[in-house]
Amino acid sequence: MDRAAAEQLDAADPLARHRESFVIDDDHLVYFDGNSLGRLPRRTEQRLAEVVRSQWGSRLIRSWSEWIDLPERVGDRLGRVVLGAAPGQVVVADSTTVNLYKLAAAAIAARPGRSAVVCSAEDFPTDRYVLAGLAAQHGLDVRSLAAPEGVGRAVDRDVALVMFSVVDYRSGEIADVASIASAAAAAGALTLFDLSHAAGSIEVDLDAWGVDLAAGCTYKYLNAGPGAPAWLYVRRGLQDSLMPPVWGWFGQRDQFAMGPDFEPAAGIRRWLSGTPPISGVVAVDAGVSVVEEAGMRAIRAKGIALTSMAVELADAWLAPLGFTIASPRDATRRGSQVALRHVEAYRLCKALIEEADVVPDFRAPDVIRIGLSPLTTRYCDVWDGLARLRGLAEERAWERHDPTPGAVT
Amino acid sequence: MDRAAAEQLDAADPLARHRESFVIDDDHLVYFDGNSLGRLPRRTEQRLAEVVRSQWGSRLIRSWSEWIDLPERVGDRLGRVVLGAAPGQVVVADSTTVNLYKLAAAAIAARPGRSAVVCSAEDFPTDRYVLAGLAAQHGLDVRSLAAPEGVGRAVDRDVALVMFSVVDYRSGEIADVASIASAAAAAGALTLFDLSHAAGSIEVDLDAWGVDLAAGCTYKYLNAGPGAPAWLYVRRGLQDSLMPPVWGWFGQRDQFAMGPDFEPAAGIRRWLSGTPPISGVVAVDAGVSVVEEAGMRAIRAKGIALTSMAVELADAWLAPLGFTIASPRDATRRGSQVALRHVEAYRLCKALIEEADVVPDFRAPDVIRIGLSPLTTRYCDVWDGLARLRGLAEERAWERHDPTPGAVT
Repeated sequence: MDRAAAEQLDAADPLARHRESFVIDDDHLVYFDGNSLGRLPRRTEQRLAEVVRSQWGSRLIRSWSEWIDLPERVGDRLGRVVLGAAPGQVVVADSTTVNLYKLAAAAIAARPGRSAVVCSAEDFPTDRYVLAGLAAQHGLDVRSLAAPEGVGRAVDRDVALVMFSVVDYRSGEIADVASIASAAAAAGALTLFDLSHAAGSIEVDLDAWGVDLAAGCTYKYLNAGPGAPAWLYVRRGLQDSLMPPVWGWFGQRDQFAMGPDFEPAAGIRRWLSGTPPISGVVAVDAGVSVVEEAGMRAIRAKGIALTSMAVELADAWLAPLGFTIASPRDATRRGSQVALRHVEAYRLCKALIEEADVVPDFRAPDVIRIGLSPLTTRYCDVWDGLARLRGLAEERAWERHDPTPGAVT
Repeated sequence: MDRAAAEQLDAADPLARHRESFVIDDDHLVYFDGNSLGRLPRRTEQRLAEVVRSQWGSRLIRSWSEWIDLPERVGDRLGRVVLGAAPGQVVVADSTTVNLYKLAAAAIAARPGRSAVVCSAEDFPTDRYVLAGLAAQHGLDVRSLAAPEGVGRAVDRDVALVMFSVVDYRSGEIADVASIASAAAAAGALTLFDLSHAAGSIEVDLDAWGVDLAAGCTYKYLNAGPGAPAWLYVRRGLQDSLMPPVWGWFGQRDQFAMGPDFEPAAGIRRWLSGTPPISGVVAVDAGVSVVEEAGMRAIRAKGIALTSMAVELADAWLAPLGFTIASPRDATRRGSQVALRHVEAYRLCKALIEEADVVPDFRAPDVIRIGLSPLTTRYCDVWDGLARLRGLAEERAWERHDPTPGAVT
C-alpha cells in the first residue's frame, strides 16, 4: 500500500463531502483527537451566534418558550440518530460525571439490601471514581474486574449495579453489552453504561441491547464542543420506579407552580436538575444533525476502514520500532480508535505535537491513542500521521523532549 | 415626580454609560426581567465567537492548556469582584441545583449523628427540593421556617445544616446572613447560602459574614446567558474536611495520571466533577468583567435608587388599583427587585408582555416581580413600565387574557 492508495480511498469515500461541514483551516494538521474533542461543525458556529444574538440578546426571557423542552427534544433526536433509543428516554443535561452519579445513585437506591457494585478496574477514571464515592457513602463493596468479560462470574444477587463503558477509552475494545445486560438482569442487578467513546463512533442500540441506564458525553464523536452538556438514558420500563438523587426545579412535575413538595415529572424529565445550558444543548443538536446527514451505518463502516488501515500500517511500519497494538485486531470489536503502546509514548506524543503537526492523545502510562473520527478524518491523514510517527521513532525523537509529565491531554 | 425627573436621573446616572456595554436593540421594550435572564454583554458575543472559532475550531484539543484552570480563575475573579471571597474559595461549575446538592450532601456527611436540617418554606423551589431529597435519603427532619429570621429558635445541636437564600426570590428581602451564620456556628451547624438573586445586585462579603458554603447562578445579575454555569464557594478553613459526594476526574489530585483511586485535589478544585463547559465559563468571565468595570458599590447604589423609585410610583399609582407591595420598604433590606401583589397578577403579566412591551416575571400565586438590574435598567424604564401597568390595570386588561397557566416564566 502506498500513499496513492490512501488518496484513492479518499476520492471514493462517500463521507468525504461531510468533511466540508466542519471548520478545517489547517490542512497539514493531522488531528487524531476527534475522539477527545471533536471538530467544530460550521453550522454550530452559526447556530450559537443566532442563539446568543437573537434568542438571548433580542428575545431575552421570552425565548424560554422555545428552550423549555430543548433538553428532551435534542435527547429524542440523539436517541433516534445515535443511540437506538425510542423517544422519551434520553435527555441532554449536566456532565457525564454528574449523570453517571445520578443514575448510579438511583440504581443503588432501587436495589436496597444488595451489598455490591461491579465495574472494570480499567474503566475511565471518572466512572470508577463516581462509583467508588457512592460505594463509600453507602457501605458497598466494589467488585472491580480486569475486563467486562468477567461479569458472568462477578454478578450475583448481592449486586445492585453493573457499570461499564461500551468502548474502552484506551484500547477501543467494544464490550458485549447485550450479554452483560442479560447476565445482570438474570441476577436482578441494574446496568449502567458509559457511551462516551461509543456514541457517534459505533452503531448503538440501547433499546434492543436491554440496557437499563446509560450516559455519555457529546464533545467527542458528536462534535458539540469543549465541555458541552452530556446526555443520559433511562429505559422506559424503569422510569416510574427510579428517583433521581438530585431533586431540582427542572425535574418538577408542575415546574412553575413552584409548589411546596417535589413531585417528579413523568418520564425522562425528572432527570433534569437545574436550568439547562441552552447554547450547549443547541451545540449538541447541531452536532447530531451532522451525524444524521451522514448516517451511523456509513460512519461506522468508515471507522472500521480507517482503524483497519491504521493497524495495517502500524504492523508494517511501527512494530519493528518497538510499538505494540493495544486494540482488538478484530475490527468489529474495536471502536474508532487504535492504541499504540510504546515505552516512550509520552515523549513521542510531545514530539508528534510539537514537531510533526500530528495531534494524538497520550494515555498513561504508555499509550499513544489514535482517534479516527470518521466524519473528519481522511485516509491520507492516517497515512501521513503514522508516517510522521514512524519518522520520529526512527530518529529517536523522544530524546529531544522532557519526560516530566505535563499538559498533554 | 414626573417623567422629566426620571430623564434627569438618567442623564446624571454614573452607570448610564455601562448600558452601552450591552446589546439593546429595542428601546421601547421595558425589560423588568434582568433578574431572571440578564441581558447580553457585547463583549460576550465577541468572546464566545472567539472561543468557538479560534480556540475550539482552530486550536482544538491544544486549547485545554488554556482552559484547564478556567473554572478556578473565573471563580477567583467572581470572588473578588462580586462575592467578597479571597482567592481559592470559588469555582465555576455545574448548575446551581447540582452545586447546592453537592455542598449540602457534603455538609450533612460532615455532621454525622445530627438529625435535622433547617431551611425556609418560602425559599426558591430548587433549594427546598434539593434539601428535601437529601433529607429523605439520609432520614433527616426538615425544619422548615416561615422566614430566615426564625433561625435562632430553630437551630440546636441536632441541626447539621442551615440553608437559606440571601435575597428572597419573590420579595427581594435580604436575609441577615451574618446573624444566621453566627447562630448556626454557635450550634455547630454548617451554613449554605444561595446567592442567585444577590450576586451582582447587592454588596456581598462571604468571608466577613462567616458563611461556610454558598452557591448561585450567573445568568441573572451577572449576565452570563441562559443556563450558564453556576458557582460554588467553600470557606477555606473547611476545605480539607469536606468531601464532595460526586467524585469526578476534574476533582482528582493528579488528574491525568488517571490513577486507581480518587484522591481529592487540594483546595476548591475537588468540587469540580466533570469536564467544565468552556464557553459557559467564558461567558461568566465576560459578565463579571462588566460588573467589575462598574463596581458593586455603584451598582448597589443604583439598585436602591431604582427600587425606591418603583416603590414610590407603586404607592402613588398602583395601590389605589388594588396592588400591594410585597417587598421590604426599607431599601437596605431589599435586593434589586420589587414584588407587586395583585389578585390578577397572572393575567396582568400576560397583558404587560403581549400588549405593552413590558417584560416582568410572574411568580405564583399572585406576584408581578419587577426586576431592576442596575446595569441595564434606566429610571425612565421604571417610569414607563409602571405607567403602562397602571394603564392596563385601570382598563381591567386582564379580562382580555386567558387565566389558564402557561409559559409565563
